[in-house]
Amino acid sequence: MNNSALRSCESMNYLFYPRSIAIIGASADPAKPGGMPLFSMIKNGFAGSIFPVNPNHSVIGGLTCYPSLKEVPGEVDLAVIAVSARESGKALKDCAWKGVKAAVVFTSGFAETGSDGEKLQKEMVELAHENNINLCGPNCMGIFNAQNAMTAGFVITELSKKALVPNFFGFISQSGGFGAILHDIAAAHGIGFTYFVSSGNEADLQFSDYLAYMVKDANTKVIGGYLEGVREGRKLFQAAEMALTAKKPVLLIKTGRHHGAAKAAASHTGALAGSDRVYNSFFKQKGIIRVEGISELMATLSLFANCNLPQGNRVGIIAGSGGTGVLAADKCAEAGLELSAFNAQTQEALSELLPAFASAANPVDITSRIFTSPTLLRETTSLLLEDPGVDMLLVLHWTSNRGLSHPTRGIADLLSNAEKPVMVLAWGEDEAVLQDLHFFQNHQIPAVRELDYAVRSLAALARYSSKVNNNLVSAEYTPGPSPDWHKTADLLENLKPDVQLSEFQGKEILQACGIPTTREGLARSKDEAVQIASNLGYPVVLKIDSPDIPHKTEAGGVKTNLDTPDKVEAAFTDIINAVKTFKPDARIRGIQVQEMLTGGIEIIAGINRDPVFGPVILFGLGGIFVEALADISLRVAPLTITDAREMIQEIKGFRVLSGLRGAPPADLEAIVDVLLKLSRLALDYPQITELDINPLFVFEKGRGVKAADVLIIGN
Amino acid sequence: MNNSALRSCESMNYLFYPRSIAIIGASADPAKPGGMPLFSMIKNGFAGSIFPVNPNHSVIGGLTCYPSLKEVPGEVDLAVIAVSARESGKALKDCAWKGVKAAVVFTSGFAETGSDGEKLQKEMVELAHENNINLCGPNCMGIFNAQNAMTAGFVITELSKKALVPNFFGFISQSGGFGAILHDIAAAHGIGFTYFVSSGNEADLQFSDYLAYMVKDANTKVIGGYLEGVREGRKLFQAAEMALTAKKPVLLIKTGRHHGAAKAAASHTGALAGSDRVYNSFFKQKGIIRVEGISELMATLSLFANCNLPQGNRVGIIAGSGGTGVLAADKCAEAGLELSAFNAQTQEALSELLPAFASAANPVDITSRIFTSPTLLRETTSLLLEDPGVDMLLVLHWTSNRGLSHPTRGIADLLSNAEKPVMVLAWGEDEAVLQDLHFFQNHQIPAVRELDYAVRSLAALARYSSKVNNNLVSAEYTPGPSPDWHKTADLLENLKPDVQLSEFQGKEILQACGIPTTREGLARSKDEAVQIASNLGYPVVLKIDSPDIPHKTEAGGVKTNLDTPDKVEAAFTDIINAVKTFKPDARIRGIQVQEMLTGGIEIIAGINRDPVFGPVILFGLGGIFVEALADISLRVAPLTITDAREMIQEIKGFRVLSGLRGAPPADLEAIVDVLLKLSRLALDYPQITELDINPLFVFEKGRGVKAADVLIIGN
Repeated sequence: MNNSALRSCESMNYLFYPRSIAIIGASADPAKPGGMPLFSMIKNGFAGSIFPVNPNHSVIGGLTCYPSLKEVPGEVDLAVIAVSARESGKALKDCAWKGVKAAVVFTSGFAETGSDGEKLQKEMVELAHENNINLCGPNCMGIFNAQNAMTAGFVITELSKKALVPNFFGFISQSGGFGAILHDIAAAHGIGFTYFVSSGNEADLQFSDYLAYMVKDANTKVIGGYLEGVREGRKLFQAAEMALTAKKPVLLIKTGRHHGAAKAAASHTGALAGSDRVYNSFFKQKGIIRVEGISELMATLSLFANCNLPQGNRVGIIAGSGGTGVLAADKCAEAGLELSAFNAQTQEALSELLPAFASAANPVDITSRIFTSPTLLRETTSLLLEDPGVDMLLVLHWTSNRGLSHPTRGIADLLSNAEKPVMVLAWGEDEAVLQDLHFFQNHQIPAVRELDYAVRSLAALARYSSKVNNNLVSAEYTPGPSPDWHKTADLLENLKPDVQLSEFQGKEILQACGIPTTREGLARSKDEAVQIASNLGYPVVLKIDSPDIPHKTEAGGVKTNLDTPDKVEAAFTDIINAVKTFKPDARIRGIQVQEMLTGGIEIIAGINRDPVFGPVILFGLGGIFVEALADISLRVAPLTITDAREMIQEIKGFRVLSGLRGAPPADLEAIVDVLLKLSRLALDYPQITELDINPLFVFEKGRGVKAADVLIIGN
Repeated sequence: MNNSALRSCESMNYLFYPRSIAIIGASADPAKPGGMPLFSMIKNGFAGSIFPVNPNHSVIGGLTCYPSLKEVPGEVDLAVIAVSARESGKALKDCAWKGVKAAVVFTSGFAETGSDGEKLQKEMVELAHENNINLCGPNCMGIFNAQNAMTAGFVITELSKKALVPNFFGFISQSGGFGAILHDIAAAHGIGFTYFVSSGNEADLQFSDYLAYMVKDANTKVIGGYLEGVREGRKLFQAAEMALTAKKPVLLIKTGRHHGAAKAAASHTGALAGSDRVYNSFFKQKGIIRVEGISELMATLSLFANCNLPQGNRVGIIAGSGGTGVLAADKCAEAGLELSAFNAQTQEALSELLPAFASAANPVDITSRIFTSPTLLRETTSLLLEDPGVDMLLVLHWTSNRGLSHPTRGIADLLSNAEKPVMVLAWGEDEAVLQDLHFFQNHQIPAVRELDYAVRSLAALARYSSKVNNNLVSAEYTPGPSPDWHKTADLLENLKPDVQLSEFQGKEILQACGIPTTREGLARSKDEAVQIASNLGYPVVLKIDSPDIPHKTEAGGVKTNLDTPDKVEAAFTDIINAVKTFKPDARIRGIQVQEMLTGGIEIIAGINRDPVFGPVILFGLGGIFVEALADISLRVAPLTITDAREMIQEIKGFRVLSGLRGAPPADLEAIVDVLLKLSRLALDYPQITELDINPLFVFEKGRGVKAADVLIIGN
């Protein structure tokens, strides 16, 4: 776990709101990286001072050009470094000398190219840290701030002139090329930016720093990002939590989901890609909306920017043909949305309004009569927007290339003033569709061309709404047995790196945490074993206790379901013999005689360490479910009560816990208690690298849990 | 099971290739349903005779108009009926009198509106059948045949003028409105049709009839459809099998996947929607490509129409930025495609070609240098097309709205002549993208704007290729014990409607089929029970045998794991007492003493009847997998060997059978044998409505299977 803090807003302001900028390696060619920022800022009217630096020019773009940074008069807040990798070290040294506060390094040839570049990068970062310079890049396309026309970037700046509509979108990209494409497409959608960052190798400032900065910016309503991976998961955790608390939606495209892809991502930015499963769980946990591509991002962005959050996930659909309505209904159900059931009043009014052969239920099929009855669409839309069973509205029409104008245009006033989220689908393939899309976008009405993205964005909006609301509720639960954290700390003294605790030691720790375990006793003889068994009550389990036998079953060291004293004695002998054959020099502490649990459901709960996010809590059904299906849920510690509940409900086999075939439901709150205790344990004791309670038996509601075995490994 | 046959091509030719057409209810208004077909055929130059019929006109569109069909001179092959529901009965009677061979009924107001309409429709169908009239509709937008300019349809005909590119696509739509949208979009994509059918209520001709007709048409290279459901699954089975054998791809959008949506679909066409799971399994079984929307259909269609089938599923990706390449790689992996590993020669050549900071591995990142090095893209593309590890090529570029022309245009010759499938992604949102898309389409190069559809269509092409190849292999397997079908027939004499056979009777039937069952014997006394147990060997299971106790466990009628004579005797008494308490008047035949199976894996296999498709074979893992996850695969009988193997591999828990934790793999071929026998049983004995072998124990490879219990219910 890395405890480094997020960069402060104050210090990052030099990057986004510099009073003066020097461009080291300034070019007189507006198409080159050294020319683009300069000419773009002149064109866009950046109000601060701009100082081109280049020994071969005296004037560039009408501005005095200086032979070196040292000659530049007055203070310089930000330096853009657009020279070769070899020269960039010198440039940064000049920045240090000059007292520059922030630098954007375009240059490639650092960590992304191998060990030589890595060394260069390390030197650069050290220099920046020593001199309190906030550094963006290297190997990036830079940044721009549309709010003050500050463009310390190349390629992307060309188009900033198009970003004239209300600025509300902040974007951070770990791939410059991807960012450029995204920028082009957003501009075509009429979506304006507040800030745009191509973060490059993130040698100093990281994705999470920019994210936190944008969360705090009042003008940035929605934040988007292209993410391949972060190095410090804790920073992302903090930034995401800030965003969730501020109710500022974060939409991320995260690549590297698959092994091959993860490798490609690593090779191209040098970032460590953690397990995608951990990222995905973390996104759910902190309300980050994961989108699967650019079009889906645009659709979702448009909804978040223009609409209120919905009260629920029930969608009303208006379609111009029965078939398209059914297709949309299918997709809604698949995306986890519900179809609204209209109330009697709405149904009656719809029946009067619509032709007899049309469907007045949801999805509403208003048929091709939409083209001949001018008020039909308006009245239908009003009815649905007023129905309390409708949380969101999806209006489907194809833009006809038959020369008819889009009827939905006629209700733009209704749609843009709606309190409920509205999404218009304009499908079709010709120029008229583009015009319609622009028309809706200009009226602040979310509109897309693909049904898939329309539906997925509505689903994302509904999920986010529910997440934000749940996050505000201070959830309560019934805590289980009280923990004794002092005792836990004492017991964990024994845990050394790579050491694995015995089952007995592990159970002592669980008990100290207030996690119930099976009753048991250590027997050193047959007689002792029988004695303990009769105290516990039959049947019992016998297990070898040896520091040299980590996998007891394999060694013949476990016998279950022993229901008589005879069987206990026989098992004792068998185990000793088996273990001695298996490992003649094994040190044997004795044999644990354990109560045999019956009637519960086997689950697993544990702690793991993710290289990116640190302590992670795991939960799943035991036995074959884990083995064959990897049916595990996970969250990054610390867990909230809601996180723990979501973990339990998320597994595929959840039905097993909720009561199959009329069985009583399992004691879910007792599981919540265990998961929260593990979360605390994982955070407080970094010396635990792995902890597995497997199996943990959960009994019916009110009867708690009991750990039958536990494995703890030191860090 | 419905044995009605598909309609013959000869008789359907009257619908698609009529020599003469009468339009009953012809209109002088080209925008009305009675006017559109008429004016469209005149405009498009239909070569046959056209007879407008309308008592209020003497000439329409320059053609003599007749007061009634009876006045029309000469023979009429096809009648278009565009009058009200009330008048359409009379119109069809005139058709019968006139000897008309086929009719297209546009009119609404039939089965889709309720019981009155249903009655009208029934009368219409009877009249059609009596007079050998092939009937399309009612409640449809009709059909057109682009090959002879025959347009017996409305709405869709307006645009047929745009469909001038090579015709290869046949489309059948169960929703007229959906069909119209699809037609518009296809036309914008430059995709031409052979036939287009809006099938309406399918009172007579059904989806499957049109499908089979198009399979037999040499000009139709790919068939598409919008399907809400069929009434007769057997017809679809036949038509799909014809298509698979002919290697003619069928791409279907099937709605009604979710309960609510299924209801909406039913209300709007009156078609019976069977279980979507059965449809989905059937599609896999017969190689039907299920697509999820119009854009995906267009992308897939374009690939199938323009490309050869690939040799495998390995994709080479060329991207203009690292990030987009990684995103594409992610999506490929998710869609079940593999990333090509380039051979040494390709890798070396790429390294020489590309800048040092670019990725020469797959995905290939050729960076923005694509814009400055004119031959870079061409050389990279050639290298990948020549690498034997590349089965398909995906070329990603955004169409820049920076005023640069799309570099991929420059290699159109290379792409359109490639032996391997190629897909171009042109993302972006402005007019330039549309122009690029049209450019590629005009060069017969598949090109789309969304990465999702590019990848999913490549995956569909690869799956289809593999399906077509597997279908040709005459798969062999090792048959299990020989069946005695005569004995099976005799035993099934006992199976009456709604009767449930006893476990003992069921097992006799399985044995006759050659499906091994547990050894057992019926005991009428404790002594007999002990005798049988000692013959079988311990441990044994005791089970009540009573026609009045269908659920034995519930009644206390089962005792397992009995390993001594004493325990058998005690269990005998316990069971008798429990059953007598549970149901005092139960008739008791005795108690079955059964060998107790250990060491195998519990699976289930069975027969079910689907209302649409008839006999369906099921397979899954037993116990908690079925209960909690519904982890079942199914196929429509008859099964091929490949079908049976695919069923086994398809379940989520397949890993349990392939050998978990070093366990030996299960005897999969023995399961194949059982599934094939069940398939035969299901087809030959329609009196079996349900058969469940649960559990069926499968042992390690070479050691077969054994049914521990079976339930058979009569139809």
